Amino acid sequence: MSLSQQVTLIDFEFSFHLPSFIEFGYGKASRLGERILQLGAGKVFLVADKGVESAGILNRLTESLQSSGLQYDIYTDVEPDPSLETINRGAKVFKANRYDCIVAVGGGSPIDAAKGIRVVASNGGSIGDYAGVNRIPAAPAIPLIAIPTTSGTGSEVTIFGVYSDWHNNVKVTVTSQHMAPALALVDPELTVSLPAKMTAATGIDALAHGIETFFSLRSRPASDALAMEAISVVNANLRRAVSDGSDIDARIGMSHGSLLAGMAFNNGFLGLAHAIGSALSGHCHVPHGIAIGLLLPHVVEFNSPARPEKAAKIAELMGVTADGTAELAEEAAPAVAQLVQDIGLPTRLREVGVPEEKLADIAQDSFKSGMMKFNPRQPSQSEVLDLLKRMF
Amino acid sequence: MSLSQQVTLIDFEFSFHLPSFIEFGYGKASRLGERILQLGAGKVFLVADKGVESAGILNRLTESLQSSGLQYDIYTDVEPDPSLETINRGAKVFKANRYDCIVAVGGGSPIDAAKGIRVVASNGGSIGDYAGVNRIPAAPAIPLIAIPTTSGTGSEVTIFGVYSDWHNNVKVTVTSQHMAPALALVDPELTVSLPAKMTAATGIDALAHGIETFFSLRSRPASDALAMEAISVVNANLRRAVSDGSDIDARIGMSHGSLLAGMAFNNGFLGLAHAIGSALSGHCHVPHGIAIGLLLPHVVEFNSPARPEKAAKIAELMGVTADGTAELAEEAAPAVAQLVQDIGLPTRLREVGVPEEKLADIAQDSFKSGMMKFNPRQPSQSEVLDLLKRMF
Repeated sequence: MSLSQQVTLIDFEFSFHLPSFIEFGYGKASRLGERILQLGAGKVFLVADKGVESAGILNRLTESLQSSGLQYDIYTDVEPDPSLETINRGAKVFKANRYDCIVAVGGGSPIDAAKGIRVVASNGGSIGDYAGVNRIPAAPAIPLIAIPTTSGTGSEVTIFGVYSDWHNNVKVTVTSQHMAPALALVDPELTVSLPAKMTAATGIDALAHGIETFFSLRSRPASDALAMEAISVVNANLRRAVSDGSDIDARIGMSHGSLLAGMAFNNGFLGLAHAIGSALSGHCHVPHGIAIGLLLPHVVEFNSPARPEKAAKIAELMGVTADGTAELAEEAAPAVAQLVQDIGLPTRLREVGVPEEKLADIAQDSFKSGMMKFNPRQPSQSEVLDLLKRMF
Repeated sequence: MSLSQQVTLIDFEFSFHLPSFIEFGYGKASRLGERILQLGAGKVFLVADKGVESAGILNRLTESLQSSGLQYDIYTDVEPDPSLETINRGAKVFKANRYDCIVAVGGGSPIDAAKGIRVVASNGGSIGDYAGVNRIPAAPAIPLIAIPTTSGTGSEVTIFGVYSDWHNNVKVTVTSQHMAPALALVDPELTVSLPAKMTAATGIDALAHGIETFFSLRSRPASDALAMEAISVVNANLRRAVSDGSDIDARIGMSHGSLLAGMAFNNGFLGLAHAIGSALSGHCHVPHGIAIGLLLPHVVEFNSPARPEKAAKIAELMGVTADGTAELAEEAAPAVAQLVQDIGLPTRLREVGVPEEKLADIAQDSFKSGMMKFNPRQPSQSEVLDLLKRMF
């Protein structure tokens, strides 16, 4: 498949944006203090969560802050899937203490929280005011450095933040170039202590970012190029990272694959697995990566007939060999299912406590997600329900 | 060749940066006024050159400025390969007239000029003060929009500016994230009137950006992914764009390929062809693209033994079929040479007025280029001289 052949239409258009400066390398977290001094800041608000703190990961970072002579406070009042209130409360703490820089350390939750806190602290209001696309009027004056400790969300380079509105049981997404961190400091060493289950759940999310972006109606050659590399790298490293967390090469591969996937989906957006996944997490509190692992094989099967060339490429990137595009395309979903099984993630909704009677509501609420419209094959509500029933 | 296999070393590290927001599409130049209003600016310094002005390209842009109610002046006092003095003079004009935004329209010369003018107008001093890497201390407050009218330089998205120091007969390069335009507005329609010769010379430069970045010692999977797509897209479209300038699809392909190459080399840097090319232009005023077209086949031949897998991939991306990596690798240089010949570019130094007695000086000055150190095979001065003699 030559992607260059796509460039044959007068309506070929796209935008591409990757505002964060990316610095990647094993042990690079020790540069944190130096980087903050370069940004001209002196008093750091370090946003993490209790899991990151108890894993001892912060020590490596606070050592760097201390040796650069920087003041800092650690703020871990961030729960998984942080609420709108968490963001507004964090912004108040930031302003009351006159910090001049935010460092976010963790998985998607602390990083998304820090993105929101920065916008509210800098631009005022409440994070809910900025829900939607391009609603932040000006760039926040506060520099934000994002340091991932998982390999999955890609949040360190994206323009998105996702928050929980528990009053309405929905996820609120803020999409704006002003959400992107100034610096993404990606140090695979920080992921070495991540337990196998979390490695699996976050890793499959990275794969899903690559695959959903590659299938997306908003995909373009530049996002495709990054997505293909992401799929290949994640597939080559995820089993190893799960089976032996101390395999440094596999950890480096996963940090890299997750980053590439984030660079891709920041520009190509996502699709059906993330749309249903959002409803599944909203209704039944299924952790995001677990939900994505459950959904991804079924979504790839659903989408493959609509994009057989892309499905064939996905299969190829995941190591399948077969003659002909049609044969390869049929192998994409089984290849993803095999990976999900190999890394020990749940494969049935009943295993993760989803009651059968909620499936209809989940199917209905899938259509509230902004990601649904980028999926290459538009499902009916009953098709989504069928898909959920088959997974039950 | 699976590039994912490269991720097997603890010293695998890289940075990636693409600060410009990219907007690409046929006819998008009509959005210029709207975009400037979004940036909050009102008085535009439109930097172009006399070629762009006389081609009538500016009319499409000034119509957009007028219909958005924006004030503007057109500044075309920019020569090819602009001098340090040109930049400093432009900055004086900018400040004297209190503009609040710069729009650069043209090939590499007006865009590089505008990058320099912006830095001097915003940060003071002279552009020569910022020569080198990361010498600009703060982001310029003035927004810069770059609108390419050729498909080659990639300058619309890069962090580089190249200026001529005619007192010392050298090129001065300013490398800084603060050089990148805020917005790259890439409209293939603006390239339709570009003459065949210019299309060929600028197009081969785009190919060289893809190839040199792919070979570079600083290449990484993310820059590789973009570079490979660039090579494939440029190869698929350059002959058609040269033979029929009104072939809209070919023009769209070339604008896209050039942009992808710019995105790639902004992160992977260049190599030997650009190092020698810089000396060749400095000594004999050979236009940049012509110099690159002359050099590229010879440099690919020189580099291929050092990176046979990459050479094989280049051949494959340029449509060569052969069994085995070694066989493919040998076909990379002939494939590039064939393209150079097909688009009618000179293939001998004597054709472009280079005197044989200057070859030794050119070989010597090639080593002044910062790009030399990224080349995967380090030549001796006599090897460069041999290469020039074979091209003579």
